[in-house]
Amino acid sequence: MTQHPEVTWEDIEAASRRIAPYAVRTPLLYAQALSRQVGTDVYLKCENLQRTGAFKVRGALNMVLALKEQPNPPRGVITASSGNHGQAVAYAASLVGLPCTVVVPETVVPVKERAIQSYGARVIRCGTMSSQRIERAEQLAREEGLAFVPPYDHPRVVAGQGTVGLEIAEDLPGVRTVFVPVGGGGLVSGVATALKMRILGVRVVGVEPELANDTYLSLQAGHPVDIGETKTIADGLRTNHPGHYTFPIVQKRVDAIALVPEDGIRNAVVRLLDSCKILVEPSGATSVAAVMAAAERGEALQGPVVCVLSGGNMELSMLAKWLG
Amino acid sequence: MTQHPEVTWEDIEAASRRIAPYAVRTPLLYAQALSRQVGTDVYLKCENLQRTGAFKVRGALNMVLALKEQPNPPRGVITASSGNHGQAVAYAASLVGLPCTVVVPETVVPVKERAIQSYGARVIRCGTMSSQRIERAEQLAREEGLAFVPPYDHPRVVAGQGTVGLEIAEDLPGVRTVFVPVGGGGLVSGVATALKMRILGVRVVGVEPELANDTYLSLQAGHPVDIGETKTIADGLRTNHPGHYTFPIVQKRVDAIALVPEDGIRNAVVRLLDSCKILVEPSGATSVAAVMAAAERGEALQGPVVCVLSGGNMELSMLAKWLG
Repeated sequence: MTQHPEVTWEDIEAASRRIAPYAVRTPLLYAQALSRQVGTDVYLKCENLQRTGAFKVRGALNMVLALKEQPNPPRGVITASSGNHGQAVAYAASLVGLPCTVVVPETVVPVKERAIQSYGARVIRCGTMSSQRIERAEQLAREEGLAFVPPYDHPRVVAGQGTVGLEIAEDLPGVRTVFVPVGGGGLVSGVATALKMRILGVRVVGVEPELANDTYLSLQAGHPVDIGETKTIADGLRTNHPGHYTFPIVQKRVDAIALVPEDGIRNAVVRLLDSCKILVEPSGATSVAAVMAAAERGEALQGPVVCVLSGGNMELSMLAKWLG
Repeated sequence: MTQHPEVTWEDIEAASRRIAPYAVRTPLLYAQALSRQVGTDVYLKCENLQRTGAFKVRGALNMVLALKEQPNPPRGVITASSGNHGQAVAYAASLVGLPCTVVVPETVVPVKERAIQSYGARVIRCGTMSSQRIERAEQLAREEGLAFVPPYDHPRVVAGQGTVGLEIAEDLPGVRTVFVPVGGGGLVSGVATALKMRILGVRVVGVEPELANDTYLSLQAGHPVDIGETKTIADGLRTNHPGHYTFPIVQKRVDAIALVPEDGIRNAVVRLLDSCKILVEPSGATSVAAVMAAAERGEALQGPVVCVLSGGNMELSMLAKWLG
């Protein structure tokens, strides 16, 4: 694996300028009822209101636009994803006219497949495991001269996700604590990098489901640990190990990992809908689940607090069951 | 009834300055999928993300704060409302330390009663009809020296709701068509006043449920018409006649009224949740229902279009049924 340099503030600023025409500067909403419950001001960074419904578009745009800026741009891009990253790359590629291929599992949800196709991307179904998809995507990349866009393990992707932190720092310079969902670690490492370079003493807490605690265990072990298959309802956080590029950044810049149980995640989704009038997918609601759990334990939170809501793409049929 | 002067641009600017510390400047979100469907850019003015979950807080704040600024402020405020306006007045009064009373129907939904009480307001249950509540509130106002805060029929309230239009004009000066839900007419008359004074040629379309078409029929008749009891799912728009103060403004400044069927309203609520990741109550979603209906009829809309989403307070149990 190539050794990539660590992401700098300048990389994140460059990403912010590069993606600005195509990404939403998402609102930072004050959560009134949640603030009263927690006893300090809580704000929500609404990446569920981002283009394609998730923060993923920031990293994908930063990487795809940079590829297109090269003297010899690739003939197309390819990725392997069953979820938000696939849509994000398809959207980014469609903007710059690069052909795009997304390798999805045989078990892909039809609505996600259609969303990817709606941006003009080619969809290839392959196997059911992540490793099968990535192998097929890398093989196609070599055969067809396509550039592979990884979901988190690349400085351009981390710099793109870091723009979430840059916007928080600009909109709420007094922020004390930021909760960020952790899957492969692209979002949390980008956000922590941006915030730690701008706001003295800010605390960044990563949040994982108890059922997908790979980064938590890896930090304890001091090296990436593989936890095998995970079953959390937070489908965007079902990674079995942290990224090779992102893990050292997490080790260096993230202050703690909070673990949240499945029912806490479900409650947070319903709470965000009821009190804040926004739809957040389970993965995205883990940050609020962590804040609610802290309040229930009577833990004092250093506010103002920001919860990053990473995305809003969830099946409404599942939501209906939770509400019923 | 006292003759009030018509609301001016200066009144709306003053309202904007007055309410700024306590109201949210709500985001104007670009609706990507809806824009593609309609064939022109569609933006959403998200009053569902407003404090207390609805635009009502703007008018209530403007009136209550102005009462408090008087040399002899009243001993308290009172209103009659089973819904968003009651919460809005209770919130506004709590901010300035004025005692607040809200007269609600005997059949009040517990969650709404609790929301009003959570701002420290006194709740009095009275009858089931709007006329009974208003009579009781006016009687208490006389007995106890309280100021009555009407839900729409007052220039301070209209000027407060007009700040929605002021913000649209500032954020999207190129806007061509604005769709606004119509109940008593406070929101649409405020928004139309603000927009027509700032944007040449902008078209303002009021939207009513087919089942609560009092303003539509009144405009045809040339005077306020009473349609009796209404049963639409858009509970915030169940007025049986337009306001005496607001109707002449609607006659003068609103270009047309669009009528939407009940299933169109339901579909718009689900569509906003699924595509835009926001919860909008049936009343608030009527503007999007009108735009979707126009697109289905193949009508060309002059864009950019703004849909005002007036609020987000709906029972999640009802939503669960619609999603299931």
